[in-house]
Amino acid sequence: MAQSIEGKPVLAVDLGGTKIVTALITPQGDILSREYTPTLAEEGVEPVIKRILTTAAALIKDAGLPYSSLSAIAIAVAGAIDSEKGMVTASPNLPGWFNVPLRSRLESALGIPVVINNDVRMITWGEWQHGAGKGISDLVCLFVGTGIGGGIIVDGKIVHGSSSTAGEIGHMIVAYDGKQCSCGRRGCFESYAAKWALTENVYQRIKKGEKSQIQFKGDKPRQEILKSSVIKEAYLANDPVLKDELIKSVNYFGMGLANIVTLLNPEIIVIGGGMIESMGDQLLPLICESLDRNKFPSAKYKIKTAELGDYSVLAGAAYFARQRLVR
Amino acid sequence: MAQSIEGKPVLAVDLGGTKIVTALITPQGDILSREYTPTLAEEGVEPVIKRILTTAAALIKDAGLPYSSLSAIAIAVAGAIDSEKGMVTASPNLPGWFNVPLRSRLESALGIPVVINNDVRMITWGEWQHGAGKGISDLVCLFVGTGIGGGIIVDGKIVHGSSSTAGEIGHMIVAYDGKQCSCGRRGCFESYAAKWALTENVYQRIKKGEKSQIQFKGDKPRQEILKSSVIKEAYLANDPVLKDELIKSVNYFGMGLANIVTLLNPEIIVIGGGMIESMGDQLLPLICESLDRNKFPSAKYKIKTAELGDYSVLAGAAYFARQRLVR
Repeated sequence: MAQSIEGKPVLAVDLGGTKIVTALITPQGDILSREYTPTLAEEGVEPVIKRILTTAAALIKDAGLPYSSLSAIAIAVAGAIDSEKGMVTASPNLPGWFNVPLRSRLESALGIPVVINNDVRMITWGEWQHGAGKGISDLVCLFVGTGIGGGIIVDGKIVHGSSSTAGEIGHMIVAYDGKQCSCGRRGCFESYAAKWALTENVYQRIKKGEKSQIQFKGDKPRQEILKSSVIKEAYLANDPVLKDELIKSVNYFGMGLANIVTLLNPEIIVIGGGMIESMGDQLLPLICESLDRNKFPSAKYKIKTAELGDYSVLAGAAYFARQRLVR
Repeated sequence: MAQSIEGKPVLAVDLGGTKIVTALITPQGDILSREYTPTLAEEGVEPVIKRILTTAAALIKDAGLPYSSLSAIAIAVAGAIDSEKGMVTASPNLPGWFNVPLRSRLESALGIPVVINNDVRMITWGEWQHGAGKGISDLVCLFVGTGIGGGIIVDGKIVHGSSSTAGEIGHMIVAYDGKQCSCGRRGCFESYAAKWALTENVYQRIKKGEKSQIQFKGDKPRQEILKSSVIKEAYLANDPVLKDELIKSVNYFGMGLANIVTLLNPEIIVIGGGMIESMGDQLLPLICESLDRNKFPSAKYKIKTAELGDYSVLAGAAYFARQRLVR
């Protein structure tokens, strides 16, 4: 089995809340072809599964390949994934997806092996194999977007953990009995440093009457997460509310990175996500200042920004499929 | 070299603030003989180094062995150790020990290889090789005493980190801009959960007039760290100040463990140290309750108490020497 899989492409799927991206990835990590289709997540589980199948079929048809020429399908999903069981446990971006056995559904429809995992883990492996972490055997990746997610590589191997939940960096507690987090607990790292938390803090101050160029349409800030472009514009315009809250949030982000350095002392930390992509030049010095102040004094670190953008999740998914199936 | 070292005993030294323990350890981890001598740390660096040499000489003389029959000397020291350079950077228990090149001093005196590392790391390796973590390839050990220290094993290997500082679990930040820690920073885990912090909190409340059976002689609580036996006695007698502060401290300890479970999801967590040894029955349920409340919800864990007591540091030191030298 190993030999036949090694030469064949993987069909990688990035199942997001707004779009489904599918791509054929060679064993070397190159993209043969790529397709986009809207997720239309609000239609529910079954139509989305059908759409994955349709898009995948179109992609391999366009490439002039039969399904049997694929080694596997690898699916990246934002949310809580039980990779061992091939299950989407819950996804904040996909309403109604609770304990969906996505792997067995697709395997029985297509007859080829399917693997599934959390999107941020896939991104970590993509950056490690082909991007900012290439050639490094000890690294931690951290991506800040609506939430904060990451992945840990130790001694050239992904740390999955005994129940496959390792790397939930966004949910380490940084304040005892602190702010309510989206996971139901209190004081998680992401409830101080992720974009949903920043959005809520800015919203609350504007609601109390402080002046800001940022506007909210409704009264549910978690449904109106600030876009990175909006954050950048307000920051560069010295918007007092946004700037103040962003700096607080970045201080916390640096502290979370410091904890990683204190605990694991990896060779490199790779940071990414929309805000880092659009505001890296402004944010990196602030992040490092907080990191330096909060890390264990004698621990050294290097920090790099992610290099692959949207490609990392697809490359990482393909890598994961090969790791799972070629053994 | 490898073959000749493998069969020979290691001379392990536990250099503590009050006593120096030396022991001859076989490759199987058995103790051939052991000696104790007071450290008399207040006399300064040179007399202590001399005392290590004298005790080591007595030990091997009593065992009827020449120095050439040893594979190595392995030294465990509480404090910040630069293991690569063989240096005691600083030690809270050894006044005046700043950047002492202990390895080269002993190697030139004895003519056999010397390795040196932090005592809590040695304890971790001892418990992993011979105690509560035997046969486990992913575990984290955490020891709570005056401070909090630990060690991380991933995929059957010790995580040293890129600058050899990994595992400083006591110094992850759990409160932004929080309590002053002994390391100079603010909000470290150990400044909420270690015995020095508990001592200070109890001291402050008694000083403000609250009634407690605990008594302090002077006004420098960091020089009068409460003994585990005193803590246990007051806890069992329902001393209101001690009980309240101990429960707070244990809550924080559980939260720190929860962060380890959230990040690394090891197969087993091993906890130890004087307080766990003397009050494990009382504290373990409280620790687990906090751990359950604070960990990432779907992460699973097992927790065990350390099994080897004072022997773990010596066994771990001998293991470390073999790892370093047999390669």
